[in-house]
Amino acid sequence: MSRKVVVVGGGPAAVISAATAKKHYPDVEVTLIRKFDPAVIPCGIPYIFSRLDSADKDIMGDAPLKSLGVNIVVDEVVDVDRENKVVITKSGAKYEYDKLILATGSVAVKPNIPGIDLKGIYVIEKNIEFLRMIREEVLKAKKIVIVGGGFIGVEIADDVIRLGDKEVSIVEMLPHCLQLAFDEEFCIAAEEELKKLGVKLYTNCLVTKFEGKDRVENVILSTGEELPADLVIVSVGSKPNAELAKKIGLEIGKFGGIIVDEYMRTSDKDIFAVGDCVERKSFFTGAPTRTMLASISTAEARIAGLNLFDLKVTKLAKGTIGIFSTKVGNLTLGVAGLTESMAKAEGYDVVVGVAEAPNRHPAALEGAQKIKVKLIFSKESMTLIGGVVMGPESVGEIINMIGVMMQNQQTAVEIMFMQIGTHPLVTAAPTVYPVLLAAEDVIRKLEKAKS
Amino acid sequence: MSRKVVVVGGGPAAVISAATAKKHYPDVEVTLIRKFDPAVIPCGIPYIFSRLDSADKDIMGDAPLKSLGVNIVVDEVVDVDRENKVVITKSGAKYEYDKLILATGSVAVKPNIPGIDLKGIYVIEKNIEFLRMIREEVLKAKKIVIVGGGFIGVEIADDVIRLGDKEVSIVEMLPHCLQLAFDEEFCIAAEEELKKLGVKLYTNCLVTKFEGKDRVENVILSTGEELPADLVIVSVGSKPNAELAKKIGLEIGKFGGIIVDEYMRTSDKDIFAVGDCVERKSFFTGAPTRTMLASISTAEARIAGLNLFDLKVTKLAKGTIGIFSTKVGNLTLGVAGLTESMAKAEGYDVVVGVAEAPNRHPAALEGAQKIKVKLIFSKESMTLIGGVVMGPESVGEIINMIGVMMQNQQTAVEIMFMQIGTHPLVTAAPTVYPVLLAAEDVIRKLEKAKS
Repeated sequence: MSRKVVVVGGGPAAVISAATAKKHYPDVEVTLIRKFDPAVIPCGIPYIFSRLDSADKDIMGDAPLKSLGVNIVVDEVVDVDRENKVVITKSGAKYEYDKLILATGSVAVKPNIPGIDLKGIYVIEKNIEFLRMIREEVLKAKKIVIVGGGFIGVEIADDVIRLGDKEVSIVEMLPHCLQLAFDEEFCIAAEEELKKLGVKLYTNCLVTKFEGKDRVENVILSTGEELPADLVIVSVGSKPNAELAKKIGLEIGKFGGIIVDEYMRTSDKDIFAVGDCVERKSFFTGAPTRTMLASISTAEARIAGLNLFDLKVTKLAKGTIGIFSTKVGNLTLGVAGLTESMAKAEGYDVVVGVAEAPNRHPAALEGAQKIKVKLIFSKESMTLIGGVVMGPESVGEIINMIGVMMQNQQTAVEIMFMQIGTHPLVTAAPTVYPVLLAAEDVIRKLEKAKS
Repeated sequence: MSRKVVVVGGGPAAVISAATAKKHYPDVEVTLIRKFDPAVIPCGIPYIFSRLDSADKDIMGDAPLKSLGVNIVVDEVVDVDRENKVVITKSGAKYEYDKLILATGSVAVKPNIPGIDLKGIYVIEKNIEFLRMIREEVLKAKKIVIVGGGFIGVEIADDVIRLGDKEVSIVEMLPHCLQLAFDEEFCIAAEEELKKLGVKLYTNCLVTKFEGKDRVENVILSTGEELPADLVIVSVGSKPNAELAKKIGLEIGKFGGIIVDEYMRTSDKDIFAVGDCVERKSFFTGAPTRTMLASISTAEARIAGLNLFDLKVTKLAKGTIGIFSTKVGNLTLGVAGLTESMAKAEGYDVVVGVAEAPNRHPAALEGAQKIKVKLIFSKESMTLIGGVVMGPESVGEIINMIGVMMQNQQTAVEIMFMQIGTHPLVTAAPTVYPVLLAAEDVIRKLEKAKS
């Protein structure tokens, strides 16, 4: 009888752990049990309003899983009999497993604000029925208030305002949008793009109350301002969805995520956990971190999938760096590791280099846009611990290159002398390639300090 | 009296060695002596015909050098008195140096084909007067034949055909254009783009003769075909311009470049050489290589500039990887290190992984274009020795990320589990990010081979 793997969940972590298991253990029977059908692409959700003309365009197809021979079951897992290694679903079905992978994801936080239960106020749910509904609601609405100026709030605002007939506002309690991810100068640049699009920003203030009879009509801010609203989207963060793990007695961390080892094994060696339901550790300090990202989830899923029945490879889960990118208006922003302010808050003694250059050479070429790079190094070891970039679309891959440098713990000297490739129509010039020049800036600052 | 540095040359290697010297040794007097004024951006030359509306848009400005305090002299260095450490110019001027940096670049090869001296046949020269002239000549011409389908030939063809009123042909002696740089499937994709633009390709054949009375009228091919031409551009490669170095007795390598050590010092320890005039060594085999690239030149220039008076850092010049990118039609192509065919020709036992994914997720988003990645690993050590990518503009930075992985000698397992960042509007999805999946493809192939 063939060995059995059951995966609980439908998001990227679930899909990739099922696919990786089946690719590397072709004889194993892999069953993925998910609550919703069809599955959606979580990162694409902010774009279902105007960039996509239907929520159904954000569906994650099952063809890759099916072609690998993964069984897909639509049901809700309600319990696990760990002793007999059986998963129990809401419909009463039972699935035996040799290895179980929990990929139950995260849920949006619903803050305790008076009036939050009024009609017309939504937190984002990652399922197709909700997305179809919220798209219709947004299309009908005129005055839309978004509570929370993190990635999701900013991206939804950027997409919804493009519908052309809406007033869109963001309310953010910190001094700037995206401030948990970027240093101030980058947040300000992103805010400028939002303003150019016509989004109104209310930063440094809280929502104290939602008002309305049956349905929301007004959003009351801590500044005393009142924002009329016929639809509110609340995006103030997410928390690990570890309910099932908790119920079955797995160890849970201080941020509410499932505790796992280097191989994504929980306190039960036959149960793995991957994705946003996991308690992650920082690559830099080793401390627990709240970072949630589909790209980390899929990396974890690959580790679990490859090491299910035997630990094939070592030293993989080195901790979470956190590499984010986003696009606001015409500006792409990326961040990897610690920003300058995060690093200082964490207690690092840092030295920071900056450089700017256009992504064309000569800059007279069509499509030229400035790239700004900031690199943060630990002063004594001179290793790269943070990178922030903004500019054209290629920033999405520049930040990945910086992430690779970071995972290799490269120093400023090594980065200054990296070999790179350049081309007039697609990158900065070799003479001013800003990642190398930001590293050189750091070396020069230290030379000056010594002399 | 302050120490003196003289730099000979005007291209990227000269500019960056002068700038780096001045940045890191601010008290040193740096003089750059170049033959032509103003300097041009070499990589931008193919785009002076249609993308740029004047050759003067391809000028490399002197402001960065001048603001650092580098002296710029327009003159030709004709000799060096090594004993007295004096540079002698054509105009008769003499410049003392403590350290001399030769950055004399490369010259285009003029092949020995009958009729090559007819009017209307040009090899590209990297100076503004030539560029102004050739631009005017191309604008007047109707039937243009490009001899040589390497990067320069292909890029010029792509730019000239966009003028709209020209017939443009490429004659290439190998079976495919770009074949010295890319594996066949990538060359074919680039050729498809050229054909879509209307460029005619004559591959697998040589030019045997140029015919015409005073000026070229016909290009005769080894197939017997005759191509009518009123302008011919010959781009069949370049060779190091090491004339001055040879004259003053510096050691020269088998490919005609100046021999240098890890710090870019020639056989005379007070004379450095950087850029395309240098004999490069392969990162992989250590053997001499003909690779010529502005991005390598500037890396060498940074090494020389930082280590002029004392060797500040070690183990920098690890040999030349060679990272190239280009854009043909709507397709960007990049290559780092050894292609599959180069690796096999060199004798490597390799295993190759491939993966494809769109640069948007969902792929229904505007601007979606397929990215194809091929990674080449040394089979036993499992380290990355080659990468080839094609697709959207972000390929220019994806290949740089692959180059960073290669310089860190990363293995397939490490790459499969790399943390990366993704975003719906600017990158592939985390589930299918093709660099990671190409590494996984390799691991799976080896698992299959073992089982």
